[in-house]
Amino acid sequence: MNDRRAEFRALHRGDRPLLLPNAWDHASAAALAARGHPAVGTTSLGVAAAAGLPDGVAATAAETLALARRLTRLPVLLTVDVEGGFSDDAADVAGYVAELAGLGVVGINLEDGRADGTLADVDATAEKIAAIKAVLPDLFVNARTDAWWLGVDDPLPQTLARAQVYRAAGADGIFVPGTVHLATLRVLAERLDVPLNVLFQPGGPGLDELGRAGAARVSTGSLLFRAALGAALATADAVRTGGPTTPAGLPSYAEVQGLVPTGSD
Amino acid sequence: MNDRRAEFRALHRGDRPLLLPNAWDHASAAALAARGHPAVGTTSLGVAAAAGLPDGVAATAAETLALARRLTRLPVLLTVDVEGGFSDDAADVAGYVAELAGLGVVGINLEDGRADGTLADVDATAEKIAAIKAVLPDLFVNARTDAWWLGVDDPLPQTLARAQVYRAAGADGIFVPGTVHLATLRVLAERLDVPLNVLFQPGGPGLDELGRAGAARVSTGSLLFRAALGAALATADAVRTGGPTTPAGLPSYAEVQGLVPTGSD
Repeated sequence: MNDRRAEFRALHRGDRPLLLPNAWDHASAAALAARGHPAVGTTSLGVAAAAGLPDGVAATAAETLALARRLTRLPVLLTVDVEGGFSDDAADVAGYVAELAGLGVVGINLEDGRADGTLADVDATAEKIAAIKAVLPDLFVNARTDAWWLGVDDPLPQTLARAQVYRAAGADGIFVPGTVHLATLRVLAERLDVPLNVLFQPGGPGLDELGRAGAARVSTGSLLFRAALGAALATADAVRTGGPTTPAGLPSYAEVQGLVPTGSD
Repeated sequence: MNDRRAEFRALHRGDRPLLLPNAWDHASAAALAARGHPAVGTTSLGVAAAAGLPDGVAATAAETLALARRLTRLPVLLTVDVEGGFSDDAADVAGYVAELAGLGVVGINLEDGRADGTLADVDATAEKIAAIKAVLPDLFVNARTDAWWLGVDDPLPQTLARAQVYRAAGADGIFVPGTVHLATLRVLAERLDVPLNVLFQPGGPGLDELGRAGAARVSTGSLLFRAALGAALATADAVRTGGPTTPAGLPSYAEVQGLVPTGSD
């Protein structure tokens, strides 16, 4: 097995859940890596919004690939959010993911939620997973199933059923965004034989509590991107209105420059 | 005169200084425009860091152009930081700026500070300004002179001498980053017959105070970008350590999606 892929896989078996912060550009990824996070993900919302493109409708395939090319030069394990694979064709999806893997990406997220608020066909999604795993058996494929995220009625049975199909297709982990209800997470973790990934919710249970309920990975999703944008706006407002403008932890010009790779690369 | 360029020029003659917040990607520019800012600039540090490139060494010409292409679709006046023009050749610089102007950019910043910490030749810089103005007489060329920024000894005479040369070459405004000393700004504003642009310093004088000292434009430079990055890191740290993770003013997922242009464009 590829060493970096094995290293990423092992992070799902630690004492605490793997905290996976999600980046959207080189600066955010480099800064998170420098802060000691062993792995970072990408946030499709952030990548799309930074480029002025809509999220979740397969508009960002080229942006995502270009970003992966930049981020795989950083000293951090990288897993990439590919929405629904940017195609309805399983072979196309596998080809795209193989390009990412060729850059050094160690994992991907593939989701079954669609922009129209419905869930994609479960077998079509499983076919994509199987096509990826056929080419890249040791790439960590995190299958995201969106019953909670989309507010589907009675999401638990549907989530469990889909997780089983995705698992049979080769998924290495199951990502269930939209709930941090601890009893629910316990049921999910008990019924899955692969790592459970949870989306952190501000004001909800903390990392350790989620871990005790069975989460093996906790993602921040678009939270860091939204916190960043909110802070920029708040700072601009403060300048305009004469409020205080020295947020704690403001990186210096030199610190930002220090995030950029040096050398001929 | 092009209406949008005239509108931008007029913003330098208001009762308060023009507050020019600096964006680095589509999301930051769109959000600042939605917040009611009539004009936004770009921050070369932010654009470079987002792309994983060094600032101030002419590495971001293509990135800057691609960003301008995206931002000129927004309902906001856009002025672009072109560092030193990304070339030593005045005709090349004018050609590059003409491309920006063709996209709808209403102004540019051109700087004489160099990455090695020295000031570029004053006549070579003036030649760039003259070449731009020969092609684009009504584009707002803000000439940035970096004696204070680079910590040159006795910066005032050098700044005034350079400002005079840049003005004679056709500069529409003079940008003097690195000082918010009010008595100094008063001297500069008195001696210049074009708008004086000042770089906001967190913890320093506020917008109105800078205005009373003679500043016609106040830029935030890389401050908003650094505030954004700092907030992302602080939020990731809070998730990791179990601290509070609900920053005030956090934009929602839907609000971020709402920043993206709709339609076929």
